[in-house]
Amino acid sequence: MTIPFPGTVYLTGAGPGHPELLTVRAHDLITAADTVLHDDLVPRSILQLCRSDAQIVSVGKRCGSRAITQEQINRFMIAAARAGQSVVRLKCGDPMLYGRASEELAALEQEGIPCEVVPGVSAAFAAAAGLGVSLTDRSASSKLIILTGHRAATPSPSPLWQGDLPLDATIAIYMPGTDYQRAGDSLLDSGLPLDTPCVAVSRAGTEQQQSLRTTLAELSAHDPLPPPCVILVGRALGLHTQEIADQMLAGVSNFLAPSAFS
Amino acid sequence: MTIPFPGTVYLTGAGPGHPELLTVRAHDLITAADTVLHDDLVPRSILQLCRSDAQIVSVGKRCGSRAITQEQINRFMIAAARAGQSVVRLKCGDPMLYGRASEELAALEQEGIPCEVVPGVSAAFAAAAGLGVSLTDRSASSKLIILTGHRAATPSPSPLWQGDLPLDATIAIYMPGTDYQRAGDSLLDSGLPLDTPCVAVSRAGTEQQQSLRTTLAELSAHDPLPPPCVILVGRALGLHTQEIADQMLAGVSNFLAPSAFS
Repeated sequence: MTIPFPGTVYLTGAGPGHPELLTVRAHDLITAADTVLHDDLVPRSILQLCRSDAQIVSVGKRCGSRAITQEQINRFMIAAARAGQSVVRLKCGDPMLYGRASEELAALEQEGIPCEVVPGVSAAFAAAAGLGVSLTDRSASSKLIILTGHRAATPSPSPLWQGDLPLDATIAIYMPGTDYQRAGDSLLDSGLPLDTPCVAVSRAGTEQQQSLRTTLAELSAHDPLPPPCVILVGRALGLHTQEIADQMLAGVSNFLAPSAFS
Repeated sequence: MTIPFPGTVYLTGAGPGHPELLTVRAHDLITAADTVLHDDLVPRSILQLCRSDAQIVSVGKRCGSRAITQEQINRFMIAAARAGQSVVRLKCGDPMLYGRASEELAALEQEGIPCEVVPGVSAAFAAAAGLGVSLTDRSASSKLIILTGHRAATPSPSPLWQGDLPLDATIAIYMPGTDYQRAGDSLLDSGLPLDTPCVAVSRAGTEQQQSLRTTLAELSAHDPLPPPCVILVGRALGLHTQEIADQMLAGVSNFLAPSAFS
């Protein structure tokens, strides 16, 4: 059992959302921290692990619905650590992928606040586990490319990828947003065939996991799944039959009843 | 606390190697399983979590030094499950990335053995956490590309990437092998500049973590680090000073004494 240090900030991955998919270290830190600052999409089942007297603060900036700036988050972390509290800054998935970790680490560094980064299971891996699909099946894929559909810094939509994408890759689109057509068209423009298999997975690895199995050509015809969502694209996604995927999903949605394949 | 089901195989990620970086679920399964079949590079500190009466079998195929075939691993898993044992098949990092998960899942499926995949923290994320470097710092990188230097199926060396690599990506080379020159030259051939920062990280996230900070031009001049090793390449790796990275590493090597930045 790890006890978090007073005056220290732990930039911590919450993983895909199921409490059992936290790392042991993240679990220990969350259950013992004085203050937990969390992103919007960290589920209640994880926040319920916090001490009953912990200060729990949502610092989500999703959809611009709240006016919390990065600067305010930084100030809050620094003030709590300066007051001698142990602080967990909890981010969905892994903290070093699409999470503004750089800005927060730089602010802590500038103020001399001790800090540690605790990695987490990222959504592409939870989705692959839930689907029973290897991201790098040797017959179909030798690479994993993680892209994002959301570019906060780019006011005008830019393509997900410039030029041609390799055919022997699995592509994971994080934060695809609600416009699946844009994502699908962008990958088609990068040379992927129309019949390239895609699976959108919402809330991978949790009881609320949903998935949508389609092709790049048909992706735009579907309503978006609830966030957090990742879209996996590539030939590796076509190797399993729908039936097996359905059974694997049943297993994931109830950890205590693993599914039989047959 | 999760109890593994008899007759079931859990394809489980061991994460980067530190017991605290296992997921809670992987930890529970490892401590309770009847049989654990593990890859060569799963460290002793994790195997020590197993029950004292568990059957623990190394099924590593590294360096061709042992004559265990994939077919034999499959048969062993199936026989143990058929005998009513709970079986953890433990793979380094995440089981769905470079681990022959497809072959093992297909064999289990064919025999009707219930199976579940438990994701894990992959090495690139543990390395980024240890270095204090965001894989997708907004000023430097919008993508993560995971490649491998090791292609079991290709007898002749092939380039890591065909064509040009994007400059706004972080590249993670898994299993770079001992020939860093081949990896470096291949990325230079794909258009990355000579001064592109690289950091090789061995045993990321464990007490034995070592790192080597260099550039693509200089990569080949260095002796390879001990496996498992991942090489991170890209502009995002140049954003932190050496001094800060050293202090972050000190923090990682002793989880109970997080480092101050200043």
